Amino acid sequence: MKNVIVTGATGFIGQRFIKQLLQAGHSVHALHNKPVTQLLFTETKPYPINWHQIDLFDQVRVDALVEKIKADTLVHFAWYAEAGKFWQSDLNLDWLAASSLLLKSFVRSGGRYFLGAGSCAEYDWSTPGVMQEESTAIIPATLYGTSKSAFSQIAQQYCKQSQVGFAWGRIFWLYGPGEDESRLVAYVIKNLLAGKEANLSAGAQKRDFMHVDDVSQAFAGIAEVEAQGFFNIGSGQAISVKSLCELIGEILDKKDLLKFASKESLNNEADCIYADISKLIASTNFQPRIDLQPGLKKTVDWWKNKKNASV
Amino acid sequence: MKNVIVTGATGFIGQRFIKQLLQAGHSVHALHNKPVTQLLFTETKPYPINWHQIDLFDQVRVDALVEKIKADTLVHFAWYAEAGKFWQSDLNLDWLAASSLLLKSFVRSGGRYFLGAGSCAEYDWSTPGVMQEESTAIIPATLYGTSKSAFSQIAQQYCKQSQVGFAWGRIFWLYGPGEDESRLVAYVIKNLLAGKEANLSAGAQKRDFMHVDDVSQAFAGIAEVEAQGFFNIGSGQAISVKSLCELIGEILDKKDLLKFASKESLNNEADCIYADISKLIASTNFQPRIDLQPGLKKTVDWWKNKKNASV
Repeated sequence: MKNVIVTGATGFIGQRFIKQLLQAGHSVHALHNKPVTQLLFTETKPYPINWHQIDLFDQVRVDALVEKIKADTLVHFAWYAEAGKFWQSDLNLDWLAASSLLLKSFVRSGGRYFLGAGSCAEYDWSTPGVMQEESTAIIPATLYGTSKSAFSQIAQQYCKQSQVGFAWGRIFWLYGPGEDESRLVAYVIKNLLAGKEANLSAGAQKRDFMHVDDVSQAFAGIAEVEAQGFFNIGSGQAISVKSLCELIGEILDKKDLLKFASKESLNNEADCIYADISKLIASTNFQPRIDLQPGLKKTVDWWKNKKNASV
Repeated sequence: MKNVIVTGATGFIGQRFIKQLLQAGHSVHALHNKPVTQLLFTETKPYPINWHQIDLFDQVRVDALVEKIKADTLVHFAWYAEAGKFWQSDLNLDWLAASSLLLKSFVRSGGRYFLGAGSCAEYDWSTPGVMQEESTAIIPATLYGTSKSAFSQIAQQYCKQSQVGFAWGRIFWLYGPGEDESRLVAYVIKNLLAGKEANLSAGAQKRDFMHVDDVSQAFAGIAEVEAQGFFNIGSGQAISVKSLCELIGEILDKKDLLKFASKESLNNEADCIYADISKLIASTNFQPRIDLQPGLKKTVDWWKNKKNASV
């Protein structure tokens, strides 16, 4: 049994991840900023979980808490993620600062393995296609990508000199129950369920979409074997945004509500970005389990139930 | 006249830099942590200088001060620099955090040009020789180099999206009056002046040594024309540590006190590291002015006077 601190524990990935840790028999210290009211699962109730509501920008409290917990492992999901705003927000600087000081507290408290959540936005997208951990250049185009990448460099170097294990999962696109309503898949499902049109770009750009349960399982797989280094977290497959939306339209039998090219594409949108996940597969016991069609079906069902529940 | 914030203003480079700014007629807000007691120059007295004693880790106070000053330009020298310890210290994480938040305060206050102090330790030293801003890989081997490099990436991206000018000076080796006594040139001079042996490595490694007045002038040259991007700050010439020490020995006529190979070299010591300064020269009005022999002579004279003064 490991003693694990998880930040962002009530987040889209975090709450699934802590469930998996609990089921695997680990002791979990779940750090969160907002009150715990909207958990997607209730099965954790029989398990012992330690909730800690804390502002990660409050360095003095963070330091005291981390020193008290004396965890073996720190899994750091928390970051600013407000849809649309997070790419350029100067809160990325605060999160870089807070993350660096959190890691320092963890290492000083005797921690021995760190796993952080990075992003495919760390990679150079100017030569589109498959992104590979060792060969694709790290040239982020956004403050978000730069901040994540900068933190990963610091964390890797600091862990190395401190003889603490280091891993960094670069997340590609994801979807699933509980996603923020302004994000693509949630937006399309919600509108189609309500009988409203979904305004979309032409959707030719290909992306790598993975169900959030698989994303969380991938992180759990890395943490379980304490794999080290950088890992892409994706499905390994590219699908155009148009095809993805059409899958949702088919599930709901409302393809006519999909209004492609009614919104402009972003100028700097790369043609195709997807993950090489051979390193992830080779280094862990993880395999993606949820194919896109059934994954989207599950997500649609969740939205249907949610809609009914809130009526 | 520009309104300039300078951090580390009482430091080895900082105090020379603020003098140059004042002489050029700029308004200077000099931030420092320790009381101002050991300035190397007194000629600033007729100039208006605004001293602010402040802890840069105190984000609330920093934010309020920067907002009040509303400077055009921020020149950031402050960082942890305790000889021998700074390469690996986890205070590098605190400085990365504090620097990121300082820059954010500056940009939010309406600032429009940032100049930061980096290091040749950001470069990949595994292929020794000349370091060049555009072609030499950034693969720092130490937490200090990684932290400086990570901060420069963040600063560049954040300044770019905020339409704030960005420049970063990567400092090579330096020496001059007022240097910390544990550093090479100061150590050798001090021992030889006292008639004591100086214990040195074999000294075959070649380095790029520049007089601190020139280092400071190079930063002033960058700031004056608001040059943008990354700049090496060095002499452009390599000299072996042995030859450098012998120059000091000749000036003091005490070469016999130099005990080469009485100390082990560091394992990972690169053969030869020096700066390509063609970009610095081409982009500014700066030229190195102080050759090594006269520069060392001036430094020796300073130590002689200091010694007399303290007797």
